[in-house]
Amino acid sequence: MSHSDPVLEGILGTDQYQLAMAQLYWKESLGERAAQFDYFFRDYPDYGTHKAGYCITAGLGWLLEWMEVARFGKPEIELLDAQRTPEGQRRFDKGFLSWLSENGDFSGIEVRAVPEGRVVHADAPVAVIRGPLAMAQILETPFLNRLNYPTLIATKASRVKEAARDGMVLEFGMRRGPASGVGAGGRAALIGGCDFTSNVALSEVMSLDPKGTHAHSMVQVFMALGEGELGAFRKFARLYPDETILLVDTIDTLDSGVPNAITVFEELRDSGHEPVGIRLDSGDLAYLAIQSALLLDEAGFEETSIVLSSDLDELAIWQIVSQIEAEAPRYGIDGGKLLERLAYGVGTRLITSEGDPSLGGVYKLVAVDDLVGDWEPAIKISEDPAKIPAPGEKKLLRLYDHRGLATADVIALEDEDLRVGETIELHHPRGDLSRSLPPSRVSEIEELLEVVFQDGKRADGRPELETMRERRRRDLERLDPGVRRLVNPHIYHVSFTTAVKELRHHLISEATEE
Amino acid sequence: MSHSDPVLEGILGTDQYQLAMAQLYWKESLGERAAQFDYFFRDYPDYGTHKAGYCITAGLGWLLEWMEVARFGKPEIELLDAQRTPEGQRRFDKGFLSWLSENGDFSGIEVRAVPEGRVVHADAPVAVIRGPLAMAQILETPFLNRLNYPTLIATKASRVKEAARDGMVLEFGMRRGPASGVGAGGRAALIGGCDFTSNVALSEVMSLDPKGTHAHSMVQVFMALGEGELGAFRKFARLYPDETILLVDTIDTLDSGVPNAITVFEELRDSGHEPVGIRLDSGDLAYLAIQSALLLDEAGFEETSIVLSSDLDELAIWQIVSQIEAEAPRYGIDGGKLLERLAYGVGTRLITSEGDPSLGGVYKLVAVDDLVGDWEPAIKISEDPAKIPAPGEKKLLRLYDHRGLATADVIALEDEDLRVGETIELHHPRGDLSRSLPPSRVSEIEELLEVVFQDGKRADGRPELETMRERRRRDLERLDPGVRRLVNPHIYHVSFTTAVKELRHHLISEATEE
Repeated sequence: MSHSDPVLEGILGTDQYQLAMAQLYWKESLGERAAQFDYFFRDYPDYGTHKAGYCITAGLGWLLEWMEVARFGKPEIELLDAQRTPEGQRRFDKGFLSWLSENGDFSGIEVRAVPEGRVVHADAPVAVIRGPLAMAQILETPFLNRLNYPTLIATKASRVKEAARDGMVLEFGMRRGPASGVGAGGRAALIGGCDFTSNVALSEVMSLDPKGTHAHSMVQVFMALGEGELGAFRKFARLYPDETILLVDTIDTLDSGVPNAITVFEELRDSGHEPVGIRLDSGDLAYLAIQSALLLDEAGFEETSIVLSSDLDELAIWQIVSQIEAEAPRYGIDGGKLLERLAYGVGTRLITSEGDPSLGGVYKLVAVDDLVGDWEPAIKISEDPAKIPAPGEKKLLRLYDHRGLATADVIALEDEDLRVGETIELHHPRGDLSRSLPPSRVSEIEELLEVVFQDGKRADGRPELETMRERRRRDLERLDPGVRRLVNPHIYHVSFTTAVKELRHHLISEATEE
Repeated sequence: MSHSDPVLEGILGTDQYQLAMAQLYWKESLGERAAQFDYFFRDYPDYGTHKAGYCITAGLGWLLEWMEVARFGKPEIELLDAQRTPEGQRRFDKGFLSWLSENGDFSGIEVRAVPEGRVVHADAPVAVIRGPLAMAQILETPFLNRLNYPTLIATKASRVKEAARDGMVLEFGMRRGPASGVGAGGRAALIGGCDFTSNVALSEVMSLDPKGTHAHSMVQVFMALGEGELGAFRKFARLYPDETILLVDTIDTLDSGVPNAITVFEELRDSGHEPVGIRLDSGDLAYLAIQSALLLDEAGFEETSIVLSSDLDELAIWQIVSQIEAEAPRYGIDGGKLLERLAYGVGTRLITSEGDPSLGGVYKLVAVDDLVGDWEPAIKISEDPAKIPAPGEKKLLRLYDHRGLATADVIALEDEDLRVGETIELHHPRGDLSRSLPPSRVSEIEELLEVVFQDGKRADGRPELETMRERRRRDLERLDPGVRRLVNPHIYHVSFTTAVKELRHHLISEATEE
């Protein structure tokens, strides 16, 4: 066994039953039959005391890159060739393995998806996958693995960024995050709301400058050697004169750390450099931020940053921000100005999505090509019929209201022509609720699903990080503040058109009658 | 950017501040000064409604393999060489990078650790790291990243296995687990209590047979094509006659799934094969297991397995087991016998450690070589002194009582000679509680920390999976049932010897007086 066995990142990183089913489809001459799967989630992350009102989709870029290269090559075929049943029989037929050698890649798969970084909602398809049944089935597990967790983390990061009122947020989660999963998780955090990460390797991959200060251990080393906290700060500042951020709570924040930092900051300034900031990592962060700001201001360091860290998440930050706004005036401090100089280092609670560590995204077979020009819906009858996704050629539309804010995501048939200026009937995907949107309530209609993978290649234009971040910012600006609320958000509308509702109803009746 | 950039798995997978501190140590001629760090956690995972009473250590094997190969090679040095401060200055000195080219690996580091798979406790060192300050500092982040999450997952898996009363447990978490972190997480689950995993690649790496059944989608495909559930089952059984496990809840478990499965099982038996089982994936699993067993028994399939899946964790399994024991007799079923044929597929809640998704393991600088033959303790003064780990040459001992059960883990000085047959004084690591263990209460004393990394190589004998599993089984047999309890466990004793207590007291007074 090995920590970095290439097999782990290859196409065998899927569930065994996908291969078992793929062989059955091949055996029944269905391996290359076109099928459609939808990827969507049924509920927003629910952190126990509070629930998200939207998600930020993430993970697509790395998924698509993986799909470009993943295939059943010689090593994978050899491993499958060696599998035996408990009775010692071959588990995989030579014919199937030979078919897999020829056809075992994702070049026949088309993925349409909501581009990475955008706001997405429960019950609406985030991606639609079409292609040969066998390979589309094998894709299920790696697809879910590469989208569910990143979308979960981008969503949490977005909430953190909102709580920080768009202040600087730094991702610090590697040490307690899920082993090598911190790569995809950290990337998602950077798409969803973090400005930088402390992870050097990930920063390189994302073309960002890695961020960091120093640890308590540095102060402890110099204390153990008789140089004290001041000596430690001085040495650090001398080596990093233009990037000095000092961690001030190793001995005592207000009695030792901040005064020593100020001494060193004055020396820095005398030598022509400007200090960057201090970091607070324990105690009552709101109170200490105010008191530290008082000391820094008095010494003439009104612009110096104050980085906060220590078990932060969106609610902790929200409380700190509120407390500073309420308390700062009592000390003669401008709370708004203090908030502007704060930065937040967010670790464990972001990279693990504390409170709800998984997104329940599913990859559902919705239809199989009937070979006479139509899609035969595939339905799990034991399921609540209202939960069954709509099969067939469809599109996802976002409707913006007269204020320019998103008012509903609507699942429509591919050939339906919803227009601004006409009344639109919308139907709740679960149950019988309907509503009418008069022309005055719809100012814009936007198609959300784009072709992102085709002919074995990414087709999403390989967006830069900044493009994905801009998508999020723009989508949040156009989202109702009630839906953005951190606690108890308003539920966003996801609806069917009348045509989709009727088609679904018809297909479900037909299928369940059989 | 790329999903599989080798830089992500290399030595730059650390926090930026570790490199900043390493350069400072180099600059101050401290880069090669010996230092000691301890790895330990202060609290067991707390799942909200219940808390663990022990942990199973995991992750060490892959960490050590990584330490064998990770180094600052040419690509890493070039990336650091290119880093610039906001003012456009080099961030890393040419001299430092040249030092790093020569010394930038872990060959000077010695790691002593509790071997993988063993029971470990809060406040006791799970590993002690010694080596050159700069490299030991850089190691912190990857060390924590590779041990915290796996130990968390092995612990959860152990609890699941206990709830299942050592019945078969299958790991199914890839689809909702943390991206590529499912490799290390799945491996930890296999050490901690899972028998197999559905992840094909991980199974290959761990030399296990991958396990799986089929998905609802397989039944849906054949239903869409007019062949129905029975047709789907029949085709699957024909292809996998010795490994047939049928998922019976696509239409209706008791009205359709189980009767159709029985029809196919009878055909299998007629053709000389024995069916393996059915899988239940929704509904009241305890009730459905009993009812399915009744139908299977009636048809002569008393040995056929029943695999349960659907949001399982240790409490869900515990409840199912209890319900079956209480309910089965009412239907004339032997509950104990039914439990023996159950298997549990555990996914999301295991791979994410639902309820507590992180282990707070820390890597604490405890001492620096004073160059005159002693260790200078390194203390964070703002911390509760009772929380400061003991510096210096020490060992971790496990004391077994007259019943042969572990009664305490004791931190002793390296040269202390604790013996069976003598009274042993123990002191609580936080606070002043003490107790005496008379000779009659100690039957065995075991040293827990072993050298696992030395001279740049793993020194732990590269144990097989089965060896690690055997360690867990043996440790659990010798753990008090009260400590093993799933809810509200008894707190296990971790203690200092009198000599350690006095040395700590002395060193802390000295350090805080300075």
